[in-house]
Amino acid sequence: MRDQYYEQLDRIVDDLVTLTTTVRRSVADSTTALLHADTTIAEKVIDAGRDIDASIDEVEERALVVLATQQPVATDLRQIVAALRMLADLQRMNALAVHVSKVARRRVPESAVPLTIQPTIRSMASVADSMIEKAARIVGNRDLTAAAALEVEDDEMDRLRADLFRVLLDGSWEHGMEAAIDLALLGRYYERLGDHAVNMARRVVFLVTGELPVTN
Amino acid sequence: MRDQYYEQLDRIVDDLVTLTTTVRRSVADSTTALLHADTTIAEKVIDAGRDIDASIDEVEERALVVLATQQPVATDLRQIVAALRMLADLQRMNALAVHVSKVARRRVPESAVPLTIQPTIRSMASVADSMIEKAARIVGNRDLTAAAALEVEDDEMDRLRADLFRVLLDGSWEHGMEAAIDLALLGRYYERLGDHAVNMARRVVFLVTGELPVTN
Repeated sequence: MRDQYYEQLDRIVDDLVTLTTTVRRSVADSTTALLHADTTIAEKVIDAGRDIDASIDEVEERALVVLATQQPVATDLRQIVAALRMLADLQRMNALAVHVSKVARRRVPESAVPLTIQPTIRSMASVADSMIEKAARIVGNRDLTAAAALEVEDDEMDRLRADLFRVLLDGSWEHGMEAAIDLALLGRYYERLGDHAVNMARRVVFLVTGELPVTN
Repeated sequence: MRDQYYEQLDRIVDDLVTLTTTVRRSVADSTTALLHADTTIAEKVIDAGRDIDASIDEVEERALVVLATQQPVATDLRQIVAALRMLADLQRMNALAVHVSKVARRRVPESAVPLTIQPTIRSMASVADSMIEKAARIVGNRDLTAAAALEVEDDEMDRLRADLFRVLLDGSWEHGMEAAIDLALLGRYYERLGDHAVNMARRVVFLVTGELPVTN
């Protein structure tokens, strides 16, 4: 009975890592769709979004069954509650990848990102990718050294977003209002992706050290 | 022992309703700060945000204690898990009110919302207010008739956001890039406030009817 219980707990952690990796791929694909104005990839992300949501619901249901049938206490209980919170983070990250893909699709055959801004968006996407990769590692291996690196990347994301807004507002913008608004929202989406990765990491740090995470 | 247990459960529901009402006031205040370029009110919302976060953490901690000590099953367990999810919604709604207030404060002595757009933002804020009021009612009284009305208001919010974007993009915009970008983000913040109210309601509908909520 206890063996089965720990198997169930381990499986939930494994599923969290797998889902995080899947969402990471969706985010990367959504960036490709965005920069290359690629409808096929955009629609792949949008369609996959539904399957990812269903997988998240399925893991959540399983976590609730463990809660109901095994009645875990102390650390085990906190672990399952943390898993439920992380599933909510993953659900939002998946939704954000879908948002990015919908912006990409709406602007085809153009890219929603003018050429001069592509390096900034590419950097934001690259930081988000690295943050999500670290979140997966932290969830899977409780690698707390990665958590500190993640906070540094979160600051880098803030800087990139500030750069993006500076370019939009410095008076030399030549790409029209629609591109500016899309970019303002895209900046927000990538920033939120980073926030969710940080949230996931902080939940694990809290589990391991008992120190309260600082919320965004 | 069981009496105390139900008292604890009831108190968590009461606290959810109180917190929802508190967050509703923050959202209303943030709109006032925004439309009237009022630094004092903006800072009141920003300061209150920290206290609201602390209250949310305190209720969450109490819900975890009930989970750990009373080991609820079936409906009671689902109720506490739903409460944890709703606390996460309230945390985000509070953060969004703070975001709106920070936009307001940054643009003082001007309002971030040009006069011609004030009716649209006022309508979005009014719909958000009504949605949060209904969410509180649904959580407090399990008033499922309000849930249907809430979905209608969610559609109204989508329409208002589309109106806002049409005005920004119809080529006649005269208020500059900063105002346009602020409005694009403000539109997103009010829309997300509505989404969270809908999420809260759907959690209650699911608890009562057992029907799976449709996610945003």
